[in-house]
Amino acid sequence: MRKIINDPVYGFITIDHPLIFSILNHPWYQRLRRIQQMALASLVYPGAVHTRFHHSLGAYHLMHCALTELRNKGVDISPEEELAAKVGILLHDIGHGPFSHALEHVLIEGASHESISRMIMQRLNEDFNGSLDLTILIFNGQYPKRFLHQLISGQLDVDRMDYLTRDSFFTGVSEGVIGYDRILKMLTVHEGELMVEEKGIYSIEKFLVARRLMYWQVYLHKTVLSAEQMLVRILTRAKELVASGALRPDPEVPLYGFLEGMKTLDLDRFCRLDDSDVEGLLKRWRFHPDRVLSTLSSWLIDRRLLKIRLGASPYGVTELGEMKEAVARNLGITEREAGFFVFEGTASNSTYDARDEMIRVLFKTGEVRDISGVDNALIHQTLATPVKKFYFCYPR
Amino acid sequence: MRKIINDPVYGFITIDHPLIFSILNHPWYQRLRRIQQMALASLVYPGAVHTRFHHSLGAYHLMHCALTELRNKGVDISPEEELAAKVGILLHDIGHGPFSHALEHVLIEGASHESISRMIMQRLNEDFNGSLDLTILIFNGQYPKRFLHQLISGQLDVDRMDYLTRDSFFTGVSEGVIGYDRILKMLTVHEGELMVEEKGIYSIEKFLVARRLMYWQVYLHKTVLSAEQMLVRILTRAKELVASGALRPDPEVPLYGFLEGMKTLDLDRFCRLDDSDVEGLLKRWRFHPDRVLSTLSSWLIDRRLLKIRLGASPYGVTELGEMKEAVARNLGITEREAGFFVFEGTASNSTYDARDEMIRVLFKTGEVRDISGVDNALIHQTLATPVKKFYFCYPR
Amino acid sequence: MRKIINDPVYGFITIDHPLIFSILNHPWYQRLRRIQQMALASLVYPGAVHTRFHHSLGAYHLMHCALTELRNKGVDISPEEELAAKVGILLHDIGHGPFSHALEHVLIEGASHESISRMIMQRLNEDFNGSLDLTILIFNGQYPKRFLHQLISGQLDVDRMDYLTRDSFFTGVSEGVIGYDRILKMLTVHEGELMVEEKGIYSIEKFLVARRLMYWQVYLHKTVLSAEQMLVRILTRAKELVASGALRPDPEVPLYGFLEGMKTLDLDRFCRLDDSDVEGLLKRWRFHPDRVLSTLSSWLIDRRLLKIRLGASPYGVTELGEMKEAVARNLGITEREAGFFVFEGTASNSTYDARDEMIRVLFKTGEVRDISGVDNALIHQTLATPVKKFYFCYPR
Amino acid sequence: MRKIINDPVYGFITIDHPLIFSILNHPWYQRLRRIQQMALASLVYPGAVHTRFHHSLGAYHLMHCALTELRNKGVDISPEEELAAKVGILLHDIGHGPFSHALEHVLIEGASHESISRMIMQRLNEDFNGSLDLTILIFNGQYPKRFLHQLISGQLDVDRMDYLTRDSFFTGVSEGVIGYDRILKMLTVHEGELMVEEKGIYSIEKFLVARRLMYWQVYLHKTVLSAEQMLVRILTRAKELVASGALRPDPEVPLYGFLEGMKTLDLDRFCRLDDSDVEGLLKRWRFHPDRVLSTLSSWLIDRRLLKIRLGASPYGVTELGEMKEAVARNLGITEREAGFFVFEGTASNSTYDARDEMIRVLFKTGEVRDISGVDNALIHQTLATPVKKFYFCYPR
Repeated sequence: MRKIINDPVYGFITIDHPLIFSILNHPWYQRLRRIQQMALASLVYPGAVHTRFHHSLGAYHLMHCALTELRNKGVDISPEEELAAKVGILLHDIGHGPFSHALEHVLIEGASHESISRMIMQRLNEDFNGSLDLTILIFNGQYPKRFLHQLISGQLDVDRMDYLTRDSFFTGVSEGVIGYDRILKMLTVHEGELMVEEKGIYSIEKFLVARRLMYWQVYLHKTVLSAEQMLVRILTRAKELVASGALRPDPEVPLYGFLEGMKTLDLDRFCRLDDSDVEGLLKRWRFHPDRVLSTLSSWLIDRRLLKIRLGASPYGVTELGEMKEAVARNLGITEREAGFFVFEGTASNSTYDARDEMIRVLFKTGEVRDISGVDNALIHQTLATPVKKFYFCYPR
Repeated sequence: MRKIINDPVYGFITIDHPLIFSILNHPWYQRLRRIQQMALASLVYPGAVHTRFHHSLGAYHLMHCALTELRNKGVDISPEEELAAKVGILLHDIGHGPFSHALEHVLIEGASHESISRMIMQRLNEDFNGSLDLTILIFNGQYPKRFLHQLISGQLDVDRMDYLTRDSFFTGVSEGVIGYDRILKMLTVHEGELMVEEKGIYSIEKFLVARRLMYWQVYLHKTVLSAEQMLVRILTRAKELVASGALRPDPEVPLYGFLEGMKTLDLDRFCRLDDSDVEGLLKRWRFHPDRVLSTLSSWLIDRRLLKIRLGASPYGVTELGEMKEAVARNLGITEREAGFFVFEGTASNSTYDARDEMIRVLFKTGEVRDISGVDNALIHQTLATPVKKFYFCYPR
Repeated sequence: MRKIINDPVYGFITIDHPLIFSILNHPWYQRLRRIQQMALASLVYPGAVHTRFHHSLGAYHLMHCALTELRNKGVDISPEEELAAKVGILLHDIGHGPFSHALEHVLIEGASHESISRMIMQRLNEDFNGSLDLTILIFNGQYPKRFLHQLISGQLDVDRMDYLTRDSFFTGVSEGVIGYDRILKMLTVHEGELMVEEKGIYSIEKFLVARRLMYWQVYLHKTVLSAEQMLVRILTRAKELVASGALRPDPEVPLYGFLEGMKTLDLDRFCRLDDSDVEGLLKRWRFHPDRVLSTLSSWLIDRRLLKIRLGASPYGVTELGEMKEAVARNLGITEREAGFFVFEGTASNSTYDARDEMIRVLFKTGEVRDISGVDNALIHQTLATPVKKFYFCYPR
Repeated sequence: MRKIINDPVYGFITIDHPLIFSILNHPWYQRLRRIQQMALASLVYPGAVHTRFHHSLGAYHLMHCALTELRNKGVDISPEEELAAKVGILLHDIGHGPFSHALEHVLIEGASHESISRMIMQRLNEDFNGSLDLTILIFNGQYPKRFLHQLISGQLDVDRMDYLTRDSFFTGVSEGVIGYDRILKMLTVHEGELMVEEKGIYSIEKFLVARRLMYWQVYLHKTVLSAEQMLVRILTRAKELVASGALRPDPEVPLYGFLEGMKTLDLDRFCRLDDSDVEGLLKRWRFHPDRVLSTLSSWLIDRRLLKIRLGASPYGVTELGEMKEAVARNLGITEREAGFFVFEGTASNSTYDARDEMIRVLFKTGEVRDISGVDNALIHQTLATPVKKFYFCYPR
C-alpha cells in the first residue's frame, strides 16, 4: 500500500503505512483542508492560500527525510519510533481552529492549539486502539530519546522548516527560503539531543535570519496585522451581542457555541469548525443591525481594511481619543464602540532566544556550543531580546 | 500611484493605473478571492487552492508583458487600448460562481460564466462612468484590432497561458509547465490577427501537449471527476428537496435563491456567492433527514469519494442496475435515489481543433499556416477529434 | 564513507561506496571535468558550459533513484547489480574525447565513443581487479536482467533523462524540462524488460516532445551547427597540412598524434585529451601561415561564425559555386580551399522510432503496447521518419 | 536590431543597442567566455563552471532593471547615461586574466584587474571613437551622479547582485540566493547617492548574510583554497624555473611572457590569455623534469589536492618543519622545495564594513541611516571586523 501525493514544494510525498492512511482519511484531519495556514495573510500575499492540511503533510515528509538522514549516520531509530514521530508531526497542528493563530485565544479561552492537539490525539488513540501511545509520549516530551520530540517541537523542528519553506513558496517571498535540505543533512544526535554539525553553522544562521525576515515582512506585515485585529474585534463584538441578546445564535451553526462562552471544550463540536464557518458568519453579519458588527464584517469581507501605523514607540493617548470621537460621530456609535475601529497594540518577535530552546552545534572535537556562542557569531545576544513594535489602527 | 504584488509564479505584479486599482478594490472583484480556481482538484492536488482572484491578476500581468512585446515589435497599441485590454482580462472570469466550472450550469441554468462576466462589465461600466466602453467592445470581439480580443480569448490567449502555468505551479505537476515567456516573445500581429513567429513552432507544440497532459492528468483526473459529480448531485438533490418542500430555504442564505429556480438572474445576489456558501450548506446538510442529501454531503466534506472507473467504452446497463439495487438496499433509499450514488457519464477533450480557433504561424516569407499544417507537424489532424472517455461512479 | 556533492539540478548527490569513490578519483574520470557536455552550444546558450563529468554524476544519481523505485515495487535487484549498474552509468561517457560528438568521428575514425568507453572499462577492470566484470556484462547487453542495460542505454535510459534535464537547466530552455521524477516513479519491470505504467503515458509523450524540441531548438540550432562544422573543417585542414608537412606536429602536444592518422588507438594518449587541447591549438593556429587554418581558427575563437541557412530542401549547385569563387578571390585561396568556407550538409533527427528501441507501456490488464500504439496517441508513426534539414554555410 | 539571449538565471536577456553589440562581439569580450567565473571552485561544486562572459551579461541585465526601476521612481537618467552605465558594467571585469582572482597578483604584479579593465576601456574607447567617454567617467567615479558609479561598484552594485545570484545558482548552494528582484525594487536615489528604502531593510540584511555564507561556504571553502594555493605555487615555481633557465619559454605560448617578469603590461598579449593557456601548461608540466613543478601540476590536473586544515589560530612552527622534512625525504627534493607542498596562510573576510562603503537606508521621514544603525540591527559593528582564518596545507 503506497501512495504518492504531488507537492509543489517537495515534488512528491510518499505515504506507505496503514496507520498514516487512517489518520489522513480521518474527518478531523481532512478538516485541516479547510483551514488556511496563514489565515488572513492572503489579503496581502494572494498566493498564500495553502492549508494546515498541506503544511502537516509537508512536515511529515521532512520528518521522513530527517529520520532517514539520522539513521544513515548511525543513530538508532526503530520502525516503531519512526512511525510514532511521523504520526506526531502529522497531528501537531490538528488542534488548530478557524484562522489558526489569529483566533487562537478568541474562540477558546485558556486552551492553546497544542493542548487541543493533545486532546485530539488522546481521542484518536482510543479510536485506533492505542496505536498512538508512543506518539503521545514523544509529543509530550516524555520519551527518553529527546531528539524525537525536538524534531516535532524545538528550534530546529521540521514544523518550522516546513512552514518557512512553504510559506515563502506560496507567498513568493523568495528571501524567506531556507536551505531545509542542507539543514537536514547537517542534523545529528549527541547524547540523545538533536544537534547541528559544525559545518552547518552558516545554514542555521541563514535559517534564523530567514525566519526573522518572514516575521517582519509577512507574518507581522502591518496590513495582515490590521486584518487580523479586525477579525478578532468582530468576534469579540459578536460575543458581546450574543451575551446581550442582540445576536441570536443559530443552533445549526456550531460556531455560535463558542461565542456563548463554553465552559468545557466540546471537542466534537470544535472539530466541525473551519474557516468557512467564520466566513459564513461574517457574510451574514454584514446585514446585522449592529453598526459595529456589520461595518467591520463588511469591511473585512470587501478588504476595506483599517489603516495601520507601525512604529518603534507607542502612539499618543490624545490622538487616540480624538480619532475615536470622530469615528463615533461619523458612524453614529458610542465612543466605547468606536474603540472597535480605533485602537492600538503591540506585535513582538525575537530572532533567537537561547534560553528558550537552544540550537546546539556539535564540533568535530566533541565540544557542544550554542549557535550564539560560536566564533564570529552572527546571532548575538541582543537578538534574543524580543523586539516589540507598536501599532495603531483607525478607519481610512 | 504604483503598487507591487508578490506572486510566487511571476515574482512581482505591478499595478499602476487608477482604473485598475478601482476594479481590484471593488467588492465583486474581491469576491474572487473566495472562489478557488480549480474547484475540487485540491482533493487530489493539495497545493491547488489558488483562487480566481490570483489567476485573473496573473493573466493581467501576462497581458501587460504581451502588449509590451508587441509594441517593441512595432505593433501600434494606444495607451487606451492597452488599458482596455488589461481591464478586459482582469474581468474575464468575474462571472464565475462558487466552484466555477463544476457548478457552472447547475446553479444558473442557461447562462455561461462569460455571459455573466459580460453583464457584470456592463454594471461596472455604469459605476465607472463609461470607462469600460472600449473594454466591452474588445471583450465582445467587436473591435477592429482583433488581436486584442484574441489575447483575451483565443487559442493563444493570456488566460490559458496563465492558468496552465499557474495550475501546474500550484499542483506541482511540473510537466504542465509551458514556456509562457518564450511564447510571449514569439507573438506577432499580421493583418490585425495574433500570430506566432516561425521559430516559435516548437514552443507552441509544447504548449498544446502540456495542455493535453493537464486535461487528462489534472482537470479530468478521475478522482476530481468523482468529487465534482458528487457536488453536482448534491445541489441537484437540494433543488428537488426545495421544490418538494422537504428543504426549507433560509432567507439569510443567498444561495437558496438559486436552488429555487430563479427566473431572471439577480446579479447582486449572485455577486454575494462564493465557495464558502456551498461549503457552509454542505456542512449543514450533513444533518439533514434526507438520506441522499446528508450522505453525499458528509462524504464529500470528509473526502469519502465515490469510486470511479474511467475507460474508453461505456459501461454495461446491467452492472449499473445491479449496483443501484445494492445501494438502495444498503442505504434504505429508493432505486431512483440510488441513482445519485451510482451513475455514468462522459468526459471529453480535444488536444487541438483548428476549426475552432486556429493558431496561425507567420513565416519569414510572409506565408501564414495553421500549426497543424507546418512541416513535420506534431499536431496532426487526428488530435482535433475530441477524445471521449466514459466514467462510472459507485460507492465503495 | 559518505560524501555529498551539491548539484544545482537535483540538490544533492550522495556517494557511498568505495568503488564509486575510486572511479570518481581516477584521472580518466577527472578528465571529464575538462570536456563540455554540449561542445560549442555555449556560443548560443552561454550557460551551457556544464561538463561530461557533471552529466555522468547526474545520470548516476538518477540510476540510484530508478533502482530504488523499482525495488520498492518489488523488482529483485541485488546490491551487486545495483553497484554494477551505477558504475556502468558513471562510465557510459568516459570514451568521449574533446568536444564530444562534434569531433567524434574526426579525431578517431572508425571508433564511436561507446566503443572507446568499452575499452576504457576493460582497462579499469584490470586496474580494479575485476570489480567491473558485472558492469561490463550489463553495459554490453549480455546480462539476463535486460532492464539494467536499458536503464543505461535505451529509449528511457537515465542518460537521456539526465541530459535533457541538465541541458535544459543550463541553457535556460525551460521548455525542454521533462518530468524526470514522475517518469522514474512510473517505471516498472515486466518479463525482465523496462516498461512504463499506464498512467505514465502523458509523461512519456511529454518527454518525447521535449526531446524533439531540444534537438531542433538547441542541439541542432543553426548557429551551433555552423560552429561545429567550422571546428570539424579546422581539424580536417590541420590533418591535410600535417600530411603535407606544412604543419609540424609538436611532440609535447598529444593531440597531434591524432592528426597524423593513428593506426591503432593509443588509449593512454587519448585519455590525456580534453577540450583545452583543441582550444590551445586553435589559438596557436590563428598565427599559422595557411590562410584556411588561420582564418577559420581566428573566426571560431572570436565567434565570428559562418552564416548558415537551414531549410527543408537542398541548396543549388550554382549558388555554391559562385560563393566559392568569391571567397577564393577575397581570401586569396584556391577554389578547393574555399570549400572550407562554403559548404552544405544535412542534419536529421527523428522524434521517436519504435523500430529502434520501443517504449513499452504496461497496462493494468497486463497488456503491453508501444507508446505509439496507445489510444489517442500523440506519438504517431509519421514521427518515426527521420526529419532531414539541409544547411548551407558561407562567410558573412 | 534586437537580440534575446537565454539565461537560466533570469530567463531572457535583451540586447538592443549597436554599441552593446559591438562590445559583445569584440574578441576581447568574447575572451571572457574562456575564463571561468569561479576559477577552481568547480573542483568542489561541479556546476560552477559558468564564465566571466555570462556574469558580465547578467550584471548588464540587472543594470537595465535597476535603471528602469529608478526611472519609474522619478530619478532623472538620460538615454546616454543609461547606455554608459550598461557599457560600464559589461566591461567591469574585462581586465580579468586566467583563473581570475586566484592568479590576479601572480601573473601580473602590481596591477589589479580593475586597473586593467580601465586600460582596456581606454583602448576600446579609441577603437569606438570616443563612445566610451561617459562610461569611463562613471567607472572612475568622476561623474556627478554618483549612484551610477555605485551601481557598478559599491556595497549594493549589480556586480555583487549578479555574482551572488549566479554563483549560488550554478553551485546549487541555494542558501546563497538573494532577493535581487526585491532589492532592485527597493533601490532609490537621494542627493545623488544610491540608497535603500526603509522597507528593504530585511532584504539587505538577508543579502549580507547570504554573502557571508557564500564566502565561508564556497569562495573560501577549504578545498577550493587548497587548489588555488596549489595553482599559485605552480606558477611561482614556473617563474623560478624560467629565471634559472630550467624551463624554456615557448615563444608560441603567450603565457610565458608573464612568467619572465614583464616590465610594462603588454595589453594585446594579455588579451590573448584565458584559462586554457594555464591548463595547457599544467598538462605539459606534468612531464617536466622538475619534481616540484611536475608533481604539483599532475596533482592539480588529477584533483589530488593537498590536504588542508582551517582554523581560528595559526599552526605550530614545529609541525610545519617536521612535515617539510618528511616531504623532502619522500619526494627527493630540498626542504626549501618542500615549502611548495607544506605551507600555511590566512583567509579573511568581513561581513559588512560600513567604513568601506556604507549601505544607506532612506526612511520615509527623510532620515538616512547606515544599515548597521537601524533599530534592532542584525548587522552589528562586530561583523565589520574582518574574520581571519588560518590554513595549513600538506600532502596526503
